[in-house]
Amino acid sequence: MALKAKVLYDFIAEAGNNELTVKEGETVTITNQNIGGGWIEAQNSRGEVGLVPEDYIEIIVEYLDLFTVFCLSLSFVAQQAISCASNGNDPWSVWNADPSGGSSNNWASNPEGTQTGKSAADPWGSVSQGHPQAYQGPGRNSFIAVVGQMLSVNTVKLLLCDLKCNVASFFMFGAQTGEVGPVWSYPEAQLDCIVADPKKGSKMYGLKSYIEYQITPNTTNRPVNHRYKHFDWLYERLLDKFGSAIPIPSLPDKQVTGRFEEEFIKMRMERLQGWMTRMCRHPVVSSSDVFQLFLTYKDEKDWKMGKRKAEKDETVGVMIFSTIEPEAHDLELAEVDQKCEQFSRFTKAMDDGVKEILTVGNEHWKRCTGPLPKEYQRIGKAFQNLSSVFTSSGYQGESTLTDAMTAAGKTYEEIAQMVAEQPKKDLHFLMETNNEYKGLLGCFPDTIGVHKAAIDKVKEADKLVAASKITPQDKVTMAKRVSTMSYALQAEMNHFHSNRIYDYNRVMQQYLEEQVKFYETVQALLLTVYPSKFKPVLFIALLPGRQLHSA
Amino acid sequence: MALKAKVLYDFIAEAGNNELTVKEGETVTITNQNIGGGWIEAQNSRGEVGLVPEDYIEIIVEYLDLFTVFCLSLSFVAQQAISCASNGNDPWSVWNADPSGGSSNNWASNPEGTQTGKSAADPWGSVSQGHPQAYQGPGRNSFIAVVGQMLSVNTVKLLLCDLKCNVASFFMFGAQTGEVGPVWSYPEAQLDCIVADPKKGSKMYGLKSYIEYQITPNTTNRPVNHRYKHFDWLYERLLDKFGSAIPIPSLPDKQVTGRFEEEFIKMRMERLQGWMTRMCRHPVVSSSDVFQLFLTYKDEKDWKMGKRKAEKDETVGVMIFSTIEPEAHDLELAEVDQKCEQFSRFTKAMDDGVKEILTVGNEHWKRCTGPLPKEYQRIGKAFQNLSSVFTSSGYQGESTLTDAMTAAGKTYEEIAQMVAEQPKKDLHFLMETNNEYKGLLGCFPDTIGVHKAAIDKVKEADKLVAASKITPQDKVTMAKRVSTMSYALQAEMNHFHSNRIYDYNRVMQQYLEEQVKFYETVQALLLTVYPSKFKPVLFIALLPGRQLHSA
Repeated sequence: MALKAKVLYDFIAEAGNNELTVKEGETVTITNQNIGGGWIEAQNSRGEVGLVPEDYIEIIVEYLDLFTVFCLSLSFVAQQAISCASNGNDPWSVWNADPSGGSSNNWASNPEGTQTGKSAADPWGSVSQGHPQAYQGPGRNSFIAVVGQMLSVNTVKLLLCDLKCNVASFFMFGAQTGEVGPVWSYPEAQLDCIVADPKKGSKMYGLKSYIEYQITPNTTNRPVNHRYKHFDWLYERLLDKFGSAIPIPSLPDKQVTGRFEEEFIKMRMERLQGWMTRMCRHPVVSSSDVFQLFLTYKDEKDWKMGKRKAEKDETVGVMIFSTIEPEAHDLELAEVDQKCEQFSRFTKAMDDGVKEILTVGNEHWKRCTGPLPKEYQRIGKAFQNLSSVFTSSGYQGESTLTDAMTAAGKTYEEIAQMVAEQPKKDLHFLMETNNEYKGLLGCFPDTIGVHKAAIDKVKEADKLVAASKITPQDKVTMAKRVSTMSYALQAEMNHFHSNRIYDYNRVMQQYLEEQVKFYETVQALLLTVYPSKFKPVLFIALLPGRQLHSA
Repeated sequence: MALKAKVLYDFIAEAGNNELTVKEGETVTITNQNIGGGWIEAQNSRGEVGLVPEDYIEIIVEYLDLFTVFCLSLSFVAQQAISCASNGNDPWSVWNADPSGGSSNNWASNPEGTQTGKSAADPWGSVSQGHPQAYQGPGRNSFIAVVGQMLSVNTVKLLLCDLKCNVASFFMFGAQTGEVGPVWSYPEAQLDCIVADPKKGSKMYGLKSYIEYQITPNTTNRPVNHRYKHFDWLYERLLDKFGSAIPIPSLPDKQVTGRFEEEFIKMRMERLQGWMTRMCRHPVVSSSDVFQLFLTYKDEKDWKMGKRKAEKDETVGVMIFSTIEPEAHDLELAEVDQKCEQFSRFTKAMDDGVKEILTVGNEHWKRCTGPLPKEYQRIGKAFQNLSSVFTSSGYQGESTLTDAMTAAGKTYEEIAQMVAEQPKKDLHFLMETNNEYKGLLGCFPDTIGVHKAAIDKVKEADKLVAASKITPQDKVTMAKRVSTMSYALQAEMNHFHSNRIYDYNRVMQQYLEEQVKFYETVQALLLTVYPSKFKPVLFIALLPGRQLHSA
């Protein structure tokens, strides 16, 4: 299988330079990555071969081989991490206290260790036999290990080079592990923030305008300003860094037209708030340097420096697992496999369930804001029209009826308005929450894919040992890694479940609360008309003729 | 203007007999009605002329000429009626006590009187100059005076021949005439009946089957049986007899397919009940011989005899006005005109209003029984599906959420069913009532048309006198007639208004009552789920990790 790459930007070849014209979104096959000088040789789907700037493409990396790379290359690092972690009773507090320095740098800052891990088995050369073009030759060191992601060739050189881990968080087990199993280490106080006060700003002498949101974290209570593109930058950092272990939901959609429309800004702010709340809630994400920088940078200089540092962060992709040290026995492969399968099934099923709610909710929304209120309005109008016809009858003593009919008609017009506004009160929150979960669940296939690939690899380990492709010690290391990954996945799933239970309790409660209010209000509205207002008196008694007869 | 006729049945011409082939529903022009032997000469739309059996066609009669015939031919009869009515203090009680005999026969049984009336002025020959074919020659005596109806040439010979009035009812004025004006004379006790117990019967050794309904009037409390076709017969009689003065609403539609389907029989019964109730409520209709016969016939023989008599009844069409004697001064033409205009505008406007309710009600019905409950059902299913996905999570302690979600889901399925069944509870009655009124209002154009034509004729009277086409006395008679007709129309409108106010009070009250019940029940249903069942606990408190920290 040849190494494929995705074209990130349009590139037009200059004549006579052996260059290849490519278009954004196109997939090309890498034919030679050892050209140098920022160039790479690629072949397009029509078979044309030429040079393309390295920065313009993104290599499409496969899970399987990355995991192998990760498993074996990290053996040294991991061992050091274990001994380090077991040095204290509360090892994660050390990292948390000073995540960017001290011992956290110690255990992961030995690039030779990584090199040792790799050279001890030279495993990826062996296991990636099916991918000769991808993993052979002097280019191999420049492969990257952000799993399940596409990344530009430029951001490479991570795994096998220099390992500086800014350890964000370990995870721990609850004493009642039997209850839910592994959980992340949660902070004493829940980080939270408020996204508010969107303001229009401009630059380049007013040529470019943008919206800036004010974000105030509950820790400093000091607002910072960010544009959508800063959120996007943060998202990219979090995805790079945690994406293999933690589903990082996408930001609310970009929208090009009507960007400054009030409604849109309000909606985006609400969704950015939702996204930030979810990130704040995650103990690993919320305690990371980059997230803290985003929330608490002091000034422009601080922000720019922090940005530069974050962009250089090398503990990204599967490297995140190297920062995790479960305080428990290694898991059996069968258990790891079973857990992974279970989560996979669950997230798939929930994804279906959530999409079902979104589909039906969407249809219901349309009906409640479109034809249904129109119909109530028309019922209201019809009652009022008939009432005014009745008024024109010239017949005396029917004002009781016509007043009541007019009131009933107006009530139905009010009901129409209520019906039309109701979705904003109930369905909106239900839809937003489910939409958020749809985004979150959409990240799981990647996360789970990393795990499945790792499990498959470990399953193959016996064969690899038999074929002397890896040493028995490598096999043990691989099993240990998979166990660590499984603990991480379990902790993440438990985090997901507890949030899900909270969120759905809340959203269902709010939905039903608003629904009850709706039915209550409509009923109360109708009761203002009925029964006091309509007075059906047996017609014969209404007739003056009657009165004459008895007179 | 040539005399037109409608073809009632297909007729195929025999060759060589100078016959014309006609098809049911076709309109032909009468070219010679003096052929004799049951034949008439007619011309079809292609210009072909030939003989057609008299029984196969129905002459289309115009209001205008009929009224002239009526006005002038009845002058004698009316004068006699007035003197007769003023003989006692309570003149109508005489007629009601024995409507088929006694003095009622006396004052209208003088065919010469009618002839006198006619020959005194020979007015229709003069005023119908524009219709030489229709009113000339020896055939003139065979014209008929059922206004606004089509009738077969065979059922003719009424107006100018033998006048036997079975006086049904006079009308009287309330002492508070100023309040609503003229009203019919209402009986002390309200006639009512119950249509129930539809039973399948058969005849011709089971070859033909039919449904028989049991009708029990509150006067005798003795049930009689009638088939739909008997109702239809009654309808035809009432229409013939009262149609010029009183709108007689059509029976519920005939339906050929699935005639014995339970649902259909129930619906037809309900509508026949509605029709009978309306007829019972009408003092003039309900006290008529034919209506009483229908409700209280003793045996088959009684029924057959009564039927024969009713079919021979000659107080039909505009003749009904001859049975009416207002106890008040004659109305000015301007007032008559203004009243007629007012009623015409009102009934037209109400017809529009009623049709609007029917249109929007119909759409609402479709939505409430179609897409809306389906949507609630899908919302219910979606909640339940998500709940069962949640149950499969393996995460402990979420049964509170999943139980509540399942309950909420089931509640929405119940709501779906309620929504779907609701129209039968509220809209049904609203629609049935408005449908009845649509039918009733559909009869007014004919009734009002008779009056308008009469008014127009009286307006022309001066010219006719000037041209010596009628005598000044004829003009006075005509004005008196129109006044009588106007009193009848006003009484009928007052009857209509009082019924309308009663019916709409009742239907609006029932509609709103059922709507309130609906919203109340839905709210109560939702309250069984919320708020007790959903317990959103801040997620961090749910985490076992939390507990470990505090331990």
